[in-house]
Order: sequence, then structure tokens, then C-alpha cells
Amino acid sequence: MIYRGELTVATRGRGTYDITREVARVVGASGAREGLATIWIAHTSASLIVCENADPSVRSDLEAFAARLVPDGDKLFRHDAEGDDDMPAHVRTVLTHASLSIPIANGRCDLGTWQGIYLWEHRKAPHSRKITVTVIA
Amino acid sequence: MIYRGELTVATRGRGTYDITREVARVVGASGAREGLATIWIAHTSASLIVCENADPSVRSDLEAFAARLVPDGDKLFRHDAEGDDDMPAHVRTVLTHASLSIPIANGRCDLGTWQGIYLWEHRKAPHSRKITVTVIA
Amino acid sequence: MIYRGELTVATRGRGTYDITREVARVVGASGAREGLATIWIAHTSASLIVCENADPSVRSDLEAFAARLVPDGDKLFRHDAEGDDDMPAHVRTVLTHASLSIPIANGRCDLGTWQGIYLWEHRKAPHSRKITVTVIA
Repeated sequence: MIYRGELTVATRGRGTYDITREVARVVGASGAREGLATIWIAHTSASLIVCENADPSVRSDLEAFAARLVPDGDKLFRHDAEGDDDMPAHVRTVLTHASLSIPIANGRCDLGTWQGIYLWEHRKAPHSRKITVTVIA
Repeated sequence: MIYRGELTVATRGRGTYDITREVARVVGASGAREGLATIWIAHTSASLIVCENADPSVRSDLEAFAARLVPDGDKLFRHDAEGDDDMPAHVRTVLTHASLSIPIANGRCDLGTWQGIYLWEHRKAPHSRKITVTVIA
Repeated sequence: MIYRGELTVATRGRGTYDITREVARVVGASGAREGLATIWIAHTSASLIVCENADPSVRSDLEAFAARLVPDGDKLFRHDAEGDDDMPAHVRTVLTHASLSIPIANGRCDLGTWQGIYLWEHRKAPHSRKITVTVIA
């Protein structure tokens, strides 16, 4: 069985957005008991990550790390058509994930206790981001 | 339904190679209308990425970033049996992707407008790279 | 057909642990001839990678690279509830992989000659890590 659900996430600019509940809703709607949920983000300047879900400082530290690793306005980059965060957003996307495949057990995403699923917006401006969840069961 | 297709890509050395069309061909041949296409690269010194497909400077900037992050001949590395790009190629592969799973909708890979699928060759010399596309529908 | 197997890996602290054989055992037990094996790690301070499996210096160099990229005790990080390797472990996990999807051919993981599957423990202390293998055939 293949079931497909779509999510649209309105971001408020750079940062991590918890989509665990939205993904769970699609898995629930699919009726799957055992199987696999594959999440896909249809963009090249926002990505998917699995991250600790308890202490918000984990995600602000992660943001600080990304800002140091791939700084906005880096002189290395020539591609800046959309601003100084344009190319850094592409690099941050490549270094993280376009797809994630999560097992389904007992009708739910079989996440570890501390695992949350996040959309990571890498652009500074708000964007509307499209995510697809494909359930195979 | 499981369908399997294989691609062989002859690289001309380090750089990104657009395989979007080749992957689309396998998905088309599978006859799948809705499902999932999972791409796998069978190497440890070349990888898969999803990247912006319009402005080539995005991919040259990405290459420049990788060269700065993991420089050839870095004194940190002991493993250099195949040359000064040997260990950097392994690191660049680990930091990017061996597998990507893309939803299929209406018989096609459901990519965003600006998304292309690329093989990233990390070795300086030309190589023949094997990629497998597994379609589940 | 969906088949699910679970692995528990007792790590001895930071480092890479070859799980290729354990994953192969689950694929064998599934009876699948052609399909896809998706590996999931249910943690946010340990991850999955595909890496060269012949020369151990590749993995020690990789460890050295990670230690330089995301140093323990980095002043950038505020989240250190579990020690100076706490936040670096989360960053290293995000930069590598929570899931990997490997084609199955002729009843086996269709890995390249030099590809091994590794659990990468990012914490300095020993941990018990849970991995799920979902076989679709």
C-alpha cells in the first residue's frame, strides 16, 4: 500500500520548525500499522533534520554552528542573486537532508524518545515550504 | 511492485553531474504512477545530492566550499594511499548522501522546480560510478 | 512485503562500529530477493554512515576530522547538560545520517566492494543504541 500526504509549512525565516506532529498525522491517516514513512522536502534552501526535542538550546546551538560553518556573505561565494544568505542556504541544505525514512510500528512513527523531526529553514525571509510524506505499508 | 534500474556514470573527475534525466528514465520505465524512487550510489568517494539546477555558480560555489572544508592534502589525514584527494573524498561522501528517496507522483519524480539530482564525484581522476534506482509502487 | 528487524549495539564510546553483518542478517531473515532495506537509528547523539571498509585509518581520519570540525567543549555551545561532548554529538548526528536506504539484490544488500555500514557513536561514554531495519520487497 502506498499513501501520500502533503504538508505546507509557513516559515517565519531562518530556524528549525517541529513537524513531528504533522508527519504523525499523515501516518495516522494512512492507516498503516507497520511500514515506512519517507519525508521529502521540495526545496534547495530548506532541509529536514532529526534533532533532540527537549532543550531548545540544542537547536539554537545548531543554528550558531551552521552560521559559523557557512557564514552569510562569505567572500568565497559568487552566487548571491537573492542576497547574502542565498548560497549559504544551498550549502546548509546539501549538508543536511532532503529525505528521511522513518519506520512505522504500531501505527506510529517509531521515533526514539528524544527524536523530533524538523524542517530547517535556511533563508532569512519567511517562505512557504512543501513537504511530502510517502507511507509504504 | 518493486522495479530496479541501474545507471553507470562516467565522470571526468571532481565535480557535480546532473542525473535527474537518467533517474526520470528509470521511473518512467517502471510504469509506476505513485510511489517512491530510492537512489543508491555504490561508492565511498562519490555521493548524491539534491541541488539548485538553474545557476551553475551554485555548484561551483559548493565545490569551493567543500575544498575549503576538507582540503586536499590536509595534514590531519594519514590515509593517502590513492593520493591527496583520497581521504577528502571519503569525508565529503560521508557529509553528503549515499541514498536519496524521492516521491513519485503522476508517473514522475515529484521534484521541486529548482531541484536537480546530482552525482558528486569527489576524486580528481575520472571514474565509472554505479547507481541503482529502486522504485516501489 | 514489509519485514522489520531490530538491532541493539552496545558501544564502547565514541567511534565507528561496523554493522554491515548485522544488517545483512536481517535482510537474510526477511527472505527478500529484490527490494529495499532502510536502516534507522533511534537516537540524536549517534548516527549512521556508509564508509570505506578496508583501511581502518579512513575511520580514524574521519574521527579526527569530526573532532576538528565540531570540537568538544566549543565555547560556541550553551547546551552542555551532559558534558562537553553533548552538543558536539548532536551536531555530528545532524551532519551525518539517521536513515539509509540500501537496495537488495539476489537476497543481499547490494553494497559496493568498499562500502561498509557503520554506526557512529558520538558520545564519549558507552551507550546502548537501537537500530531498526525495515525491509520492503
